[in-house]
Amino acid sequence: MYCNEVKSGQCDGRATPCVVKETYATALVDGRNGIGPVVGEFSMDLAIAKAKEAGCAWVTATRSNHYGIAAHYTLRAVEEGLIGISATNTSPLVVPTRAQQCVLGTNPISFAAPSKKDSFVLDMATSTAAIGKVEVQARKELPIPGGWGVDSTGNETRDPHRVLDGGGLMPLGGMEATAGYKGYGLAMMVELMCGTLGGGMYAHHIRKWTSTEHRPADLGQSFIAVDPEAFAPDFQTRLDTFIEEMRQLEPSQCGEPVLVAGDPERAHMQKVKEDGGILYHRNVLQAMETLAEWLNVAKLDTSTTQH
Amino acid sequence: MYCNEVKSGQCDGRATPCVVKETYATALVDGRNGIGPVVGEFSMDLAIAKAKEAGCAWVTATRSNHYGIAAHYTLRAVEEGLIGISATNTSPLVVPTRAQQCVLGTNPISFAAPSKKDSFVLDMATSTAAIGKVEVQARKELPIPGGWGVDSTGNETRDPHRVLDGGGLMPLGGMEATAGYKGYGLAMMVELMCGTLGGGMYAHHIRKWTSTEHRPADLGQSFIAVDPEAFAPDFQTRLDTFIEEMRQLEPSQCGEPVLVAGDPERAHMQKVKEDGGILYHRNVLQAMETLAEWLNVAKLDTSTTQH
Ligand SMILES: NC(=O)c1ccc[n+]([C@@H]2O[C@H](COP(=O)([O-])OP(=O)(O)OC[C@H]3O[C@@H](n4cnc5c(N)ncnc54)[C@H](O)[C@@H]3O)[C@@H](O)[C@H]2O)c1
Ligand SMILES: NC(=O)c1ccc[n+]([C@@H]2O[C@H](COP(=O)([O-])OP(=O)(O)OC[C@H]3O[C@@H](n4cnc5c(N)ncnc54)[C@H](O)[C@@H]3O)[C@@H](O)[C@H]2O)c1
Repeated sequence: MYCNEVKSGQCDGRATPCVVKETYATALVDGRNGIGPVVGEFSMDLAIAKAKEAGCAWVTATRSNHYGIAAHYTLRAVEEGLIGISATNTSPLVVPTRAQQCVLGTNPISFAAPSKKDSFVLDMATSTAAIGKVEVQARKELPIPGGWGVDSTGNETRDPHRVLDGGGLMPLGGMEATAGYKGYGLAMMVELMCGTLGGGMYAHHIRKWTSTEHRPADLGQSFIAVDPEAFAPDFQTRLDTFIEEMRQLEPSQCGEPVLVAGDPERAHMQKVKEDGGILYHRNVLQAMETLAEWLNVAKLDTSTTQH
Repeated sequence: MYCNEVKSGQCDGRATPCVVKETYATALVDGRNGIGPVVGEFSMDLAIAKAKEAGCAWVTATRSNHYGIAAHYTLRAVEEGLIGISATNTSPLVVPTRAQQCVLGTNPISFAAPSKKDSFVLDMATSTAAIGKVEVQARKELPIPGGWGVDSTGNETRDPHRVLDGGGLMPLGGMEATAGYKGYGLAMMVELMCGTLGGGMYAHHIRKWTSTEHRPADLGQSFIAVDPEAFAPDFQTRLDTFIEEMRQLEPSQCGEPVLVAGDPERAHMQKVKEDGGILYHRNVLQAMETLAEWLNVAKLDTSTTQH
């Protein structure tokens, strides 16, 4: 997707972001339609630098593109001993409570905080489930749990095909009786922090995920950094204790330990380490090879590939 | 509750909060065990003043008490044309995903933003439902919806009595399959922003809601203010448009219009205006009269009371 957008000129692969407005603890960054992660890293690093001076800082980027994993940015703050917060708006996939139409993105938000041993890394779409999870169920011809999606009339459905064919995802919480309006509120909050604050595209004005429209995405993103040392001393030690207390809670189901945000991803990274690398499907390696040829760059070194 | 705590000396009714640590855009406030709303207003006003200088500001209060409605503070920022964010930790009532025990509070968070006509006012507990809603169902001997609460073994239950008798509330999202771990993550995020950052009590170390333990609550709260004018111009106009677009969406059920966070409360305030005042139940008026006598203050003027 990233490569196609750069090749077609929809996204400017050579653009470097710049600061257009600045106060002591804030900045508005013009992404100049550059690659999302380039705009994101520039903006988060600016927030980190400012927070080291001011105690906290808030940087909003406009004219940006898809920035990938929200925690990629908050973890940069964590590496510097800071709390990081980041959010992005995205293409419409979520139906607001009481509505029929996809209007909001899955608008993820990440909040990450450093501790001595580990860290707390919350990184979540504000919808109940990702669209990919619905697609998997559709391919397997299996129903989806309640609270995941609605059909084209805005009513809850367990049929993944109905979600994909003109329906949409439900905000975190599901239907109104289970407070889905809170997830809808969080998705709109993210939109305010990104599109509205930055002055770019927002909600249903953002081009569709699968769209072939030739116009820039003009996404907005926010990056917040906070220095815990500006508050009570020894934040990291307290967080270690807190995390460990949560993990030690008696589990409801034997063999399913209580986790803390970031734990599933840490466990996965551990597995990758033990496996000696990331296991790719043959078709993915093939696709990467084709991509490398197309871009005329070095192919992925698969010399340690296990068959 | 507030009066009892002051009378018993558990909370210091005369205390005034003070700043113990400060940077350009942050402050750590010692609430000195004062009344929650006193600590809260002091801290939010400090965040507002700092944000007007620095663009954004983050104030955390420690040694505070129950501060009531989270949006009470964020609306102070909105009145000044700023975005306000506030959160508090609270007594344990929520069972983390996969656990059996109440460990986290309903930890509410509010995010409010100014617009010309209205405003966006999200103010939500990070649990699916408030404990009061479960109590109402128990009194009526009616079941609760799925996703609201668990029994004492951490399993989902529709029986409100089982939630109240050793069970607990579920985080927003409900069980793990419907991403209840996201609500749990948000509740823990609020705890990090409040108890961990401020260095006070946190999670299950906070005294129980109904406890008769004689020790200060030592709650933590955070207050964030952001000046939208530090970013793209005309934030308020864009927000008005966005809010109106959401309200104009085709509703899924006829007669149930799509709302925006803050709308239900605005509608209620309108109703109160039309009613010519707040309608109190006879028993509540009686209780307030007793309270006034006990505190030796003027009684509520009920001259316009309708019978
Ligand atoms: N850029 C975009 O447009 C966009 C849009 C949506 C999502 N995303 C990204 O997709 C990724 C996946 O999002 P998601 O919402 O599907 O995440 P997810 O549901 O897999 O996990 C959400 C969070 O919950 C935590 N978690 C999971 N299980 C847990 C448990 N049992 N106990 C405690 N914590 C638990 C995880 O550590 C994570 O922090 C994220 O990185 C997100 O930023 C990006
Ligand atoms: N101090 C404490 O210890 C404490 C603890 C928990 C809650 N509280 C307070 O209790 C109050 C109630 O919390 P709650 O979680 O029960 O709130 P709620 O569920 O009634 O509402 C949550 C939010 O959703 C919005 N909303 C409701 N219906 C909507 C709809 N159909 N569409 C769009 N938006 C909608 C509301 O405007 C509100 O912003 C809050 O003021 C909170 O701060 C305080």
